[in-house]
Amino acid sequence: MTVSARAAELDAADPLVGMRSRFVLDSDVVAYLDGNSLGRPLRVTAEALAAFTAHDWGTRLIRSWDEQWVDLPEALGDRLGALLLGAGPGQTLVGDSTSVLIYKLARAAVDAAEPARVEIVVSDDDFPTDRYLLEGIAAETGRTLRWIPTDPAGGVSPEQVAAAVGPRTALVVLSHVAYRSGFLADAAAITRLVHDAGALVCWDLCHSVGSVPVALDAWGADLAVGCTYKYLGGGPGSPAFAYVASRHQGVLRQPVQGWFGRADPFAMAAGYVPAPGLRQFLSGTPPVLATVPLRVGLDLYAEAGIEAVRAKSEALTAFAVEIADEVLAPLGVTLASPRDPARRGGHVTLRHPRAREVVEELWRRGVIPDFRAPDGVRIGLAPLSTSFTEVAAGLVEVGSALVGTSPPGTTA
Amino acid sequence: MTVSARAAELDAADPLVGMRSRFVLDSDVVAYLDGNSLGRPLRVTAEALAAFTAHDWGTRLIRSWDEQWVDLPEALGDRLGALLLGAGPGQTLVGDSTSVLIYKLARAAVDAAEPARVEIVVSDDDFPTDRYLLEGIAAETGRTLRWIPTDPAGGVSPEQVAAAVGPRTALVVLSHVAYRSGFLADAAAITRLVHDAGALVCWDLCHSVGSVPVALDAWGADLAVGCTYKYLGGGPGSPAFAYVASRHQGVLRQPVQGWFGRADPFAMAAGYVPAPGLRQFLSGTPPVLATVPLRVGLDLYAEAGIEAVRAKSEALTAFAVEIADEVLAPLGVTLASPRDPARRGGHVTLRHPRAREVVEELWRRGVIPDFRAPDGVRIGLAPLSTSFTEVAAGLVEVGSALVGTSPPGTTA
Repeated sequence: MTVSARAAELDAADPLVGMRSRFVLDSDVVAYLDGNSLGRPLRVTAEALAAFTAHDWGTRLIRSWDEQWVDLPEALGDRLGALLLGAGPGQTLVGDSTSVLIYKLARAAVDAAEPARVEIVVSDDDFPTDRYLLEGIAAETGRTLRWIPTDPAGGVSPEQVAAAVGPRTALVVLSHVAYRSGFLADAAAITRLVHDAGALVCWDLCHSVGSVPVALDAWGADLAVGCTYKYLGGGPGSPAFAYVASRHQGVLRQPVQGWFGRADPFAMAAGYVPAPGLRQFLSGTPPVLATVPLRVGLDLYAEAGIEAVRAKSEALTAFAVEIADEVLAPLGVTLASPRDPARRGGHVTLRHPRAREVVEELWRRGVIPDFRAPDGVRIGLAPLSTSFTEVAAGLVEVGSALVGTSPPGTTA
Repeated sequence: MTVSARAAELDAADPLVGMRSRFVLDSDVVAYLDGNSLGRPLRVTAEALAAFTAHDWGTRLIRSWDEQWVDLPEALGDRLGALLLGAGPGQTLVGDSTSVLIYKLARAAVDAAEPARVEIVVSDDDFPTDRYLLEGIAAETGRTLRWIPTDPAGGVSPEQVAAAVGPRTALVVLSHVAYRSGFLADAAAITRLVHDAGALVCWDLCHSVGSVPVALDAWGADLAVGCTYKYLGGGPGSPAFAYVASRHQGVLRQPVQGWFGRADPFAMAAGYVPAPGLRQFLSGTPPVLATVPLRVGLDLYAEAGIEAVRAKSEALTAFAVEIADEVLAPLGVTLASPRDPARRGGHVTLRHPRAREVVEELWRRGVIPDFRAPDGVRIGLAPLSTSFTEVAAGLVEVGSALVGTSPPGTTA
């Protein structure tokens, strides 16, 4: 059976197949394989923005602060936490950017650590902003970084964490799904190991939220951050989220102590008094308008359910690996992601020495994966908006670009 | 002549009168007097959001980062700087919240100050988030705060600044227009005095940008921040802006060192290397979608011109003061703003012991000013969306609410 025939069969059997038509789909795009960098908008997103602008903003005006917006960071966080993070209420907020939230949470954790805990542990292949921010925090707080080397599978194993943590550890920051390889960390086991060493762990969920079930409360996680513009459809640069376990609230204290993190902010009184609970982790006026696309994105997740999303995500990446083995391996392409679907998130990365020029050619052909230096073609498969047919079309085109043939239907 | 007849005359003579119909206007709102807290949306804003969602986001997808978004924080900052801040190119960026940007700029300035400069100078009636953030920065950097008491006119005079600054001063943070009284500071004179003391000044422009001409370069300002959801129409919680004078770039360094502030961020290389110029002040992925309303807001300012906006703003506040003197003073209302239009920004605050309940009653009647504890009714007059008729209707209703009569046309 041809690749495209198999794709058609898989699409026909996909219980989530109807979800794809809810998204804005442009006919010029043959295959969008970067939904884990920027998710497609939903078709209702523009309507939701228009309704928000006309009513919540344009008609209710400043009254909307009292009516709904003051509590939005936590209300939306609670919804996100319940649907996708395994987080009980009062522990998740939406706001700022991932980078700003990593800074706030990591500073809070490091500032609260005993002086003997001089090390911040991080993977040497973690997403750049995590590494850069922690370098800065280490420098300003007199700590040092301890780097865990990425293991051959593209991630960090519990054994590596066990070897890295100890009485000198203040904080461990790791990605649940590695941004490059898609490696899925054993978050429950690693969290236990970090706690055994008396340290705290902050999970970066940017590449897992919305594709992989997350169970922050069950893991016993301390802190977590993530973004909403990948699988969740929040739009470019949409606000991020942070999780602070209840037991750390009122103990940890973040340094960007703006008015929204103060008790009774509208009293505008003298002196900063930390707000009780999670709200101390807020700083400025919350980004209300910018959360509208996320709100409709969460509606879709409520309808689909994360378990079904994960099942489709595994099937999508398995199909991509199958095509890579069959069509692309003979052209010199290797897999830079775990082969076991249970050990990877929603994307796979393929390696080829000519990856950079191949991605440039693919973009010209309307096939849009991401290039990851030095030699990676990252294939991001958003479970709700990607069809198996799209995966097949895109990966066959990778082969076509590699052998230098023209895409079907052109005469160039 | 009655108040409403005078209002009609003023509207007829207003060269900007046509601008008001560009905004979303709801017939249930009799008078919106809080445009300096949250500006009304423009009617084109919803269309601009829809076009952005369909095209820049939905069709160009991740390619828009290369095509336009990577440089958006500075490109939009340059436009804002040229139109409204008197700032030459390469000194203004858009992103984060005002609170986060105050933290970044103030930390950068204090971290770079000589150790003997142990004081951060701030007004005791400055907007709460400024005060709270600086308290935190003082605590974490071993500095102390020096408070300037608000003068009887509701602001801070050059003489007060001269008395507060000296060889112990690291940084002075002040509002250009006071959030409560509307007092307009003499920014040029104060900047000179701060520089004479060897310190830096950071101007909070939240209440001046878009209502009062700002001349950061001409003042010789060092740093500035402001928000875009008041006069500029950015929408609730829209991104803020920061100005860092060219001479401080590459010298001052902010602590939230995320990937967008690194040189060559997409190399995703090891080690944080500050980006050259202004970009070191970026942290996370920029809030692209959230800048769409601001972009159309700036289009309107380009059309109107800030000098015409300021002229109308002065006329609006003068008319409000005139009605207050004539109609409200006999009811016990006093003015808590400067009487000289040249010494105030785009809002005035009226005082009355029953201000809180009066504002509650006004909101029920569709007249929407802001309450400012303990006894202030703040009247914000957005020059492009407020008519003189609206000012008259709103202030007459203040009187009506004070004497407890029903509004005209009701039988309650």
